[in-house]
Amino acid sequence: MTTNKKTLSIQDIDLKTLKERAFNYRWAEVPDGHIPLTAADSDFPPAKEIREDLIAYIEKGYFCYTPKTGLSSVKTAVAKALKERKNENVKEEFVLPIDSAARGMSITAKAVLEPGSEMLVFDPVDYLFAASAKSAGAEVVYYPCMIKDGKLDLSKLEEYISPRTKLIGFCNPHNPLGMCYTKEQLKELLDLANQYDLWILNDEVWSDIVYPDASFHSLLEFDDSLIQKVITVYGFSKSFAIAGLRAGVILTQSQEAYDMILETSEVLTTAGGVSSLTQVAMITCMTKCWYWVDAFIETMRINRDLAVSRIREMGLSVHTPEATFVLFIDIRKTGLSSEDFVKKVQDEGQVVLVPGSKSFFGPGAQGYVRLCFATFEPMLNVALERMERVVKTMLKK
Amino acid sequence: MTTNKKTLSIQDIDLKTLKERAFNYRWAEVPDGHIPLTAADSDFPPAKEIREDLIAYIEKGYFCYTPKTGLSSVKTAVAKALKERKNENVKEEFVLPIDSAARGMSITAKAVLEPGSEMLVFDPVDYLFAASAKSAGAEVVYYPCMIKDGKLDLSKLEEYISPRTKLIGFCNPHNPLGMCYTKEQLKELLDLANQYDLWILNDEVWSDIVYPDASFHSLLEFDDSLIQKVITVYGFSKSFAIAGLRAGVILTQSQEAYDMILETSEVLTTAGGVSSLTQVAMITCMTKCWYWVDAFIETMRINRDLAVSRIREMGLSVHTPEATFVLFIDIRKTGLSSEDFVKKVQDEGQVVLVPGSKSFFGPGAQGYVRLCFATFEPMLNVALERMERVVKTMLKK
Repeated sequence: MTTNKKTLSIQDIDLKTLKERAFNYRWAEVPDGHIPLTAADSDFPPAKEIREDLIAYIEKGYFCYTPKTGLSSVKTAVAKALKERKNENVKEEFVLPIDSAARGMSITAKAVLEPGSEMLVFDPVDYLFAASAKSAGAEVVYYPCMIKDGKLDLSKLEEYISPRTKLIGFCNPHNPLGMCYTKEQLKELLDLANQYDLWILNDEVWSDIVYPDASFHSLLEFDDSLIQKVITVYGFSKSFAIAGLRAGVILTQSQEAYDMILETSEVLTTAGGVSSLTQVAMITCMTKCWYWVDAFIETMRINRDLAVSRIREMGLSVHTPEATFVLFIDIRKTGLSSEDFVKKVQDEGQVVLVPGSKSFFGPGAQGYVRLCFATFEPMLNVALERMERVVKTMLKK
Repeated sequence: MTTNKKTLSIQDIDLKTLKERAFNYRWAEVPDGHIPLTAADSDFPPAKEIREDLIAYIEKGYFCYTPKTGLSSVKTAVAKALKERKNENVKEEFVLPIDSAARGMSITAKAVLEPGSEMLVFDPVDYLFAASAKSAGAEVVYYPCMIKDGKLDLSKLEEYISPRTKLIGFCNPHNPLGMCYTKEQLKELLDLANQYDLWILNDEVWSDIVYPDASFHSLLEFDDSLIQKVITVYGFSKSFAIAGLRAGVILTQSQEAYDMILETSEVLTTAGGVSSLTQVAMITCMTKCWYWVDAFIETMRINRDLAVSRIREMGLSVHTPEATFVLFIDIRKTGLSSEDFVKKVQDEGQVVLVPGSKSFFGPGAQGYVRLCFATFEPMLNVALERMERVVKTMLKK
């Protein structure tokens, strides 16, 4: 399907620079000739406004200490943009800029949990949930969560709550399943959490990458009284392609929660904090770069549709993601483990995927692999062709 | 005293930008007309090479994930520069770039300490030592340490070691006393630590700002066998004037120590890490900016000599620092508390100092104030004149 929507220009892709700079299982870490569809990081460079504003800042020459809890202009810009864009009730005074969403998740877990307490972690979901619980010395309790009738099935979540449960890890939209939640599902989750007096770690790093055929709803759309114990982590890596700048924010809804987060983040001693340049980039993202996000989404939508149809033509199952730029592919039909499938596709097809290993997504990810399609269409095409050749030989046996 | 050495140019000072950007008790946080001699951050902008290299990096457009344990070029540059400049035996493979020396201190304390264990913290010394111990849930045991016969007196340190002691916090050169240690003192410290099997948190953030009339020696000059339990934190804020970029490194001497630090730093999960731009700046500092450090030192030497003689003319006692760009002034003769002295100098002289409060430097700092002279000479002159007027009225009574 083509639309009149703007897309990003392939002319901006610079493979030489990607080969030098893109780490974390990507171009700089794979052998020459291999195509990495691994870490959720874009092959498109970010909006030019980010470069322009960073350079203007740098030209004035000073890199002094910023305020301990972040520049107030960051807080204002984040609150305004998330309200306008996603109707989220963000309290400017409780926005804490932080050096990456990953750090935000770790801080939140440490603020809420203690050794002996439990965090509910969906299975599968991004490894950072379990990693955060472990960094707080707490137990991970996995909630098996797959797609049922076109939605993530939250119906049995209550059964996994114990007297030691203190925190629910919630990934919205869900990575790697690429699903949004309905407002009804969110309300039910809030009611459940409030009933048991649980905190929610609300990871919204993917909340900007939602396709036009879906709707994103946030826990932050609900009434204040319902979301007092929601701590939201928002990041700039997925939406604005600045993973290397380590830009994130933690959004709390009450003074109590904000104070807990401040204390744990160590920003008041300056052990924690965010680079001034990263804060400058955050402001630019929030105030000038949504046009780029829109073009990026459309570019990714085309990739998504291409990848989903090609994967299915290969004979593998995959759900069409409503959000994110990853596919979570069911490879059980090949009879291979996730790790063996990934190894074979890499060895024989020179395409690198992420296996559904416990360490990446939880125990329930076995039999699946994750494919990141945040590259440019011709490159994605080549990768899919190569994959197809390898998958054919697997399914022939 | 004037020399032929190069100094930094006053023309580079941009007070308007400082007013916008210099937080942490500095220009952006004090009332108009006040002169902040507070946080140890320079009024001179950093070397132009830092700006140039950052801009060149930004122009290529990508801000991808960097390697989890940092760019190898950072590690190489740090190891090489610290060897050449200070004869330190830094092991390239055990250099971990980190987002500020303050974070490095917190990570080290958390890696080594646990609730119930004790850290020896000099009194006075920078607040980050006690803050790091507390963030690890450990106890602070203060070691009263003042200058005796022109040296910091370490002779009674052993008396403060208990069976629960696990870590000695060591600030070299010492902030706020501005003192270096002799090689003999360092050897005695290592012997003591090794005898009791203690770790040393070796804070060398000030190790580049040492005046020509003194000599800096490092624990990292000693034989490998003696420094296995030394964990060094080095920072770029003091030497290169880039506090806002949050640049630091942790240097360990063994695989065991490196693994402990990696685990605690959370870089392997990406919760920890350093912005790509900050890493670029680190490389530039280490490879291109030592000429700037030399000019900065000479500029600060002139300021130091001016400030010390003026403070003494006022009738107050102050030791001439061998290192750092701060003075630790004995104000007991005024009969005022540190806090009251600072308040009076601010209210009546519009000069802002840091009181010797427990929260800044420990309980033994009472009766002292800290003055940062990292401004330009004419500004320092004005500040000292204003201080003199206020101090005169105090001593007249």
